[in-house]
Amino acid sequence: MEKIKKTIGIDMDGVLADIEQQFMDWYEKEFGVRVSREERLGVLEPEGFPDKTAIKRYVYTPGFFRTIPVMEGAVAAVTKLMEEYEVYIVSAAMEFPQCLQEKHEWLAEHFPFISWTNIIFCGDKSLIATDYLIDDHCKNLDFCKGKAIMFDASHNVNQHHHVRVKSWTDVLTLLEKENLIDA
Amino acid sequence: MEKIKKTIGIDMDGVLADIEQQFMDWYEKEFGVRVSREERLGVLEPEGFPDKTAIKRYVYTPGFFRTIPVMEGAVAAVTKLMEEYEVYIVSAAMEFPQCLQEKHEWLAEHFPFISWTNIIFCGDKSLIATDYLIDDHCKNLDFCKGKAIMFDASHNVNQHHHVRVKSWTDVLTLLEKENLIDA
Repeated sequence: MEKIKKTIGIDMDGVLADIEQQFMDWYEKEFGVRVSREERLGVLEPEGFPDKTAIKRYVYTPGFFRTIPVMEGAVAAVTKLMEEYEVYIVSAAMEFPQCLQEKHEWLAEHFPFISWTNIIFCGDKSLIATDYLIDDHCKNLDFCKGKAIMFDASHNVNQHHHVRVKSWTDVLTLLEKENLIDA
Repeated sequence: MEKIKKTIGIDMDGVLADIEQQFMDWYEKEFGVRVSREERLGVLEPEGFPDKTAIKRYVYTPGFFRTIPVMEGAVAAVTKLMEEYEVYIVSAAMEFPQCLQEKHEWLAEHFPFISWTNIIFCGDKSLIATDYLIDDHCKNLDFCKGKAIMFDASHNVNQHHHVRVKSWTDVLTLLEKENLIDA
């Protein structure tokens, strides 16, 4: 009998997509200033840059979500995870509706092996019942139905109530351990 | 203490949006033939029309999803349900990605009182953990985590393993009974 795969929900921004890099790049392009990670530690993204209006403008700018660089190691790690798990992309895309199409195209470009059946664009993630959720925001992780895995980001460094992973290598290591325990 | 509201997931096509009407209208416009409900009973939508390619073309045509008429009674019923339940729109929008933006705009036009936090566009609905799911397709209802409520449609008349509602009035009547039982 085929083993039923456990499910993993994976967030896009800050997890699959390196949105911090994109914010820094767009900010530098507009203001000529490179704002380092150290300056942004522990505050939500819009507060981490000298001009507090910049981030809120960028997320409503056409092309912003379409051109975010892929997080280091994400493609190889997701490919690997799909051998053992049913992987779902779970992205809060409804707040900025212009990003729906862009996020869909971004996934088709960088993760073409993920089926349309396994993509979820939502607002609130509390109804998404995956066994695991990998995300960078407590607003999602605190209310998820499965095990929460916090993907490290500048803004979340002071949140310590979830298991933290610092990279996609860490994700694989953690889930390999879980898999051995669950097996 | 505030009572925690039960959650209802509501499908769009065939439930909030009268997609049968839209199919019949578009078919008539193209072929000059009005295909009645009786001719389409018990078969999936593309099979219900003499030209079997028509429906598959329409769902990929820009504007199709944006202009579907609202199902009779849906706006008033959803407004009423929101007094007692936390209502989520749960639409399988990923199969036809051009519809993402159109469905979002359609909801903003006809159901502007539904928050972005309560909209879910997905492929497979089996991960969406609402207490109820109102849908017209067994492929969704058979695997949902909550109680399934089948919204009557030409294509589903021979499926009898879910509670069936024939209209939005029926939905309200059914859920009022449930509410009395649960209270």
